[in-house]
Amino acid sequence: MDVSSLFSNVQADALVIIADSEQNSDMYYLTGFLAPDPFVALITRTEKIIIVSDLEYERARVEACADRVLRMAQLLDPESPQRKTVPGTVRAVLEVLRKENISKVFVPASFPVIYADYLRSQSIDITYPEGRFIQQRAIKSATETGFIETAVSDTEIVVYDTIELIRKASIVGDLLYLNDSVLTSEKLKNFIASRLFDRGYLALNTIIAAGIQSFDPHNQGSGPLPANKPIIIDVFPRSMTNRYFADMTRTVVRGVPDKHVEAMFDAVLSAQTSAIKTIKAGVPVAEPHKACCDVFAQKGFATGMINGFIQGFIHSTGHGVGLDIHEEPRLYTGDQTLEAGNVVTVEPGLYYRDYGGVRIEDLIVVEHGGYRNLNHLEKVLVV
Amino acid sequence: MDVSSLFSNVQADALVIIADSEQNSDMYYLTGFLAPDPFVALITRTEKIIIVSDLEYERARVEACADRVLRMAQLLDPESPQRKTVPGTVRAVLEVLRKENISKVFVPASFPVIYADYLRSQSIDITYPEGRFIQQRAIKSATETGFIETAVSDTEIVVYDTIELIRKASIVGDLLYLNDSVLTSEKLKNFIASRLFDRGYLALNTIIAAGIQSFDPHNQGSGPLPANKPIIIDVFPRSMTNRYFADMTRTVVRGVPDKHVEAMFDAVLSAQTSAIKTIKAGVPVAEPHKACCDVFAQKGFATGMINGFIQGFIHSTGHGVGLDIHEEPRLYTGDQTLEAGNVVTVEPGLYYRDYGGVRIEDLIVVEHGGYRNLNHLEKVLVV
Repeated sequence: MDVSSLFSNVQADALVIIADSEQNSDMYYLTGFLAPDPFVALITRTEKIIIVSDLEYERARVEACADRVLRMAQLLDPESPQRKTVPGTVRAVLEVLRKENISKVFVPASFPVIYADYLRSQSIDITYPEGRFIQQRAIKSATETGFIETAVSDTEIVVYDTIELIRKASIVGDLLYLNDSVLTSEKLKNFIASRLFDRGYLALNTIIAAGIQSFDPHNQGSGPLPANKPIIIDVFPRSMTNRYFADMTRTVVRGVPDKHVEAMFDAVLSAQTSAIKTIKAGVPVAEPHKACCDVFAQKGFATGMINGFIQGFIHSTGHGVGLDIHEEPRLYTGDQTLEAGNVVTVEPGLYYRDYGGVRIEDLIVVEHGGYRNLNHLEKVLVV
Repeated sequence: MDVSSLFSNVQADALVIIADSEQNSDMYYLTGFLAPDPFVALITRTEKIIIVSDLEYERARVEACADRVLRMAQLLDPESPQRKTVPGTVRAVLEVLRKENISKVFVPASFPVIYADYLRSQSIDITYPEGRFIQQRAIKSATETGFIETAVSDTEIVVYDTIELIRKASIVGDLLYLNDSVLTSEKLKNFIASRLFDRGYLALNTIIAAGIQSFDPHNQGSGPLPANKPIIIDVFPRSMTNRYFADMTRTVVRGVPDKHVEAMFDAVLSAQTSAIKTIKAGVPVAEPHKACCDVFAQKGFATGMINGFIQGFIHSTGHGVGLDIHEEPRLYTGDQTLEAGNVVTVEPGLYYRDYGGVRIEDLIVVEHGGYRNLNHLEKVLVV
């Protein structure tokens, strides 16, 4: 990584982040070092410095992408009057800033208030961005896009097999049966998790939500799967090796769907197609979202508080995917424009309490003059 | 949960937290609502209010433990000049604070600086604790201890089976073989992950580190497992249903250990026994750590920078375990005292570059007048 590019539009002499890299993807992106407890990355215009505890020191020296790895203990005064009230990480930051003669730092908007107040009390000037901290993360390199593309194709194999299980299910009364036992949301989620685990992915919080459950976009689903009702399959596994995510959704009905659900499916598919067509570098992020809203409006699908429930197209059209499952850019309202290398979901959906939900989601790479859809699995309602 | 107990020692009229509950366990603990994007919990002295996006609104109304669930969109002025620079979550917080006539709030030390600066600019007074936000989380209820105890006992079954695989391995040259193929760290980690997955746990970042790899406490290990060298097995799975962790470590040698490794093992076991014996409600957290240090000093095991590497007993004696793998209290230096209901690891270790590492870790419930060890699996070096 080119350190100087991190300073574009930054009026400061160092970037400072204090976080654990298992939860904070900026930290992992900057250091390539995976650690469960907070550590420090302090990036000057010429040097990337990492500060870790003794516990992590030897591993950091080998694994971290840094110019210097410092031991926190060596930077701290064990007799400091602040040792009981101020975390060692931020006291170590101050020591390095003083040595480097730096008094203006740029931090993430999520920088903890306790660190900010301490540094400010020591005459350090702190600024932060309104949005993302590491702008580059939204622009994927070929390597990163490759990781995501592989994750998508592994996910499609498993989603295909999942839909095959639904297709093979028999309809007994109102429910689906497979091998003489009732087919449940849990069985399919376990099937997906275990198949993806074998391929090197963690598929957490997979959604298999059917009937009334599918009305709620984040309901993960539970219990027997009904015949003749929409089943939303939304899978977003993370690679256990490179830590990048995939994200995709299909909606199917085993049996005969209600006419209104058919119309919802056609509208969602048409909205998605229309939104994807707008995508290319330079287009405002609001444009694919507007394309979806236009299709829904045109086809008469209303959004808003209806009979006491939020119904219709109740979420944004998409979001960036990378080391985080939800990252920049968001395809919603906003002034940003799409850039080549963005990797975004396009996932319109419709949700009505009387019919349930329909959502279709692909992962799209933004290119100059167009886009590349990483998904290839067909979109068919009835199976 | 008794809302008023959250206000003990707090000079404010509301607690405010803005976070996603998948990463932030305080948020999950307070709301019982699992969501991947930041939402708001605003707790006054009489009421717990949750503010969510439309996407989460219907699910939150059903699942969240709250007195009121509010729609963020309904609180926000769509024409506000700040809509592009200030996140909606914190603007929604301000609206509620104004309606409730509250101007002093208590937030976590990790509260993002962007939120803190905005609220302060609107004349809201912000305080935060130096340490943990929700004091109660360190004191486990019987239900929570039950979750952890079950996780420990499921983990012990799998660790027992893992050690059996090592015991059954044949020694060919310097390496271990099982069923005619070389036994690797990866094979054992996959075995552990998949066996625990079947039992409902995610076992991420499991450590199977042998020989020189075991010298580094956080090295997860890779490649063929050596005979006659220490193999550290450190497993900390999280329940996929209740989200509580277990955490345990054993160290074994298949073959004949070096005399020095035997002495390290005896010292670590003796340090652990000695530290556990100190544990009861009212004892300073530093006491079990001091017990370990005393045993190591007495037996002549030095700690510090030795030949250019940090070596010896290079980490703390233990940490709380619950919804987070590392939580309060820490068994290290510090003025806190242990309280009945704390659940802590006791995991002394010794790490020398010429011999590798030895660590033994049990999970202990602090009680009035004593402790309860949740682990029962034997501690034997040679298998």
